[in-house]
Amino acid sequence: MADVRVGFMGLGIMGSRMAANLARAGYELTVWTHTPGKAEQWACEHGAQVASSPADLGARSDFIVTMVVDGAQVRELLLGDEGAARGAAPGTLCIDMSTIAPADVLEIGARLAERSLAMIDAPVTGSSPRAADGSLTIMAGGEQGDFERALALFEVMGEVIVHVGPLGKGQAVKLINNALAAANAAALAEALVLAQAEQLDTAALLAVLGAGSGASTMLSLKARPMLERDFTTLFKTDHMVKDVRLCLQEAARAEVPFPAAEHALELLEAAAGAGLGEADFAAIVEPAAKRAR
Amino acid sequence: MADVRVGFMGLGIMGSRMAANLARAGYELTVWTHTPGKAEQWACEHGAQVASSPADLGARSDFIVTMVVDGAQVRELLLGDEGAARGAAPGTLCIDMSTIAPADVLEIGARLAERSLAMIDAPVTGSSPRAADGSLTIMAGGEQGDFERALALFEVMGEVIVHVGPLGKGQAVKLINNALAAANAAALAEALVLAQAEQLDTAALLAVLGAGSGASTMLSLKARPMLERDFTTLFKTDHMVKDVRLCLQEAARAEVPFPAAEHALELLEAAAGAGLGEADFAAIVEPAAKRAR
Repeated sequence: MADVRVGFMGLGIMGSRMAANLARAGYELTVWTHTPGKAEQWACEHGAQVASSPADLGARSDFIVTMVVDGAQVRELLLGDEGAARGAAPGTLCIDMSTIAPADVLEIGARLAERSLAMIDAPVTGSSPRAADGSLTIMAGGEQGDFERALALFEVMGEVIVHVGPLGKGQAVKLINNALAAANAAALAEALVLAQAEQLDTAALLAVLGAGSGASTMLSLKARPMLERDFTTLFKTDHMVKDVRLCLQEAARAEVPFPAAEHALELLEAAAGAGLGEADFAAIVEPAAKRAR
Repeated sequence: MADVRVGFMGLGIMGSRMAANLARAGYELTVWTHTPGKAEQWACEHGAQVASSPADLGARSDFIVTMVVDGAQVRELLLGDEGAARGAAPGTLCIDMSTIAPADVLEIGARLAERSLAMIDAPVTGSSPRAADGSLTIMAGGEQGDFERALALFEVMGEVIVHVGPLGKGQAVKLINNALAAANAAALAEALVLAQAEQLDTAALLAVLGAGSGASTMLSLKARPMLERDFTTLFKTDHMVKDVRLCLQEAARAEVPFPAAEHALELLEAAAGAGLGEADFAAIVEPAAKRAR
């Protein structure tokens, strides 16, 4: 990997762990972050180089990975005045692993194509522990050849890697996954609030739910935090709010109602409004519990 | 087991399979059904005896199992003029494995106790294939001694067997499980309708969902039937309607809102209203798809 140059922008909870895996795998890594000093410290710890700007990062990279908060940031990092596209050689592959609107992906991809740069959208699922141990699920949209070029990088960061269709479809799948997860979490929160109100033996309840038709990944991951009101952040409420909103925008565009996701969004927004935006989205249980009092 | 006498009332989709396992395990089985002739044929096939009435069945049984549709049926079979309690010897244990309201369990249990008969509520989860292979999940409410007496029978019919608390709590846990399953199914149905409207590669979508935060037992069991609109009955829409209604009655009694379950009930009732009450509750996808057109 020593001669494959990867530029990585966005060293947050997820990005820092994903980039660390690329460094460990031997890729020649260059990083850039918006916050001054943050990239320097990270690069020192992980043996990476620091770019002076996104354009500088673009000039030093065969692959440009972005892992940031929204479509506006991806657009600025890739296409802004000092964006990576300005420095990148033709044929460089831009891999956006953020979760953004499919429409943004298509627009950014078209503008990159005008400069002979390829793009693939490759959002991930799995919280920070799975980012850390390289076992994320990665759903990629883009051309087959681009997917194949990116696959070695994906295999360093992820465990389940699925090419789901053309550009933008990675995001479409990701948004549906997260909206479904949010809806399952909302139902779980309400069920647990009812169980606690009925003074049920929650250990027995969880044993039954886990063995049967009520089981879900949300049950496995979030039931204990919800019951104990332990909101140590693995995935922020604010980020889940953003993802479910994006999914509902897509649903509105397709003229498909998705009331289960609307209901989850209402609870998530209530949690964020109560100051739990930075907390884990297990905090969805708080507004559910409050209504029951 | 040959000297342990079990009376079994209710030979529907679930009950016939559960009773067959008891017969195979060597219990001395007596059956009764409301439909004339049905018990005779089943008894002939499975080497059981047929009672002339619930009271006659009660007189021949150390354990009386009921697996019927609702609380009114359980009350009639156990406490009616020709009910099993009339014939049963003091100390006989009544095991109701139906799904009925916790309040009905408490009332029936109190009336049985007046006649020195014990009761345990032991509803199950798992559809007919798991009833057939004896791998149901059984959640039992009742006194510890009664649970221990019933355990050998439960082990013949179930795989995960949990004593969840005093009488009525088996039903409380069951109703929460089924309402949660219904809510997860509703969210899944809406997500799949959106995915089909967006012409996503559903095989890729299911691979991603199954690996991540959107996974659930409902996804594993119902996604394919929903996508293919194959409603071969494993668990009837009408029965799921009944269970979610009972859960919402309990929630109302506890003054706990459960909007995710209310939304699922609305879709299930729409499916039943469209003639899919006898179909599998994967039919919840039909009203979701109809709204999207």
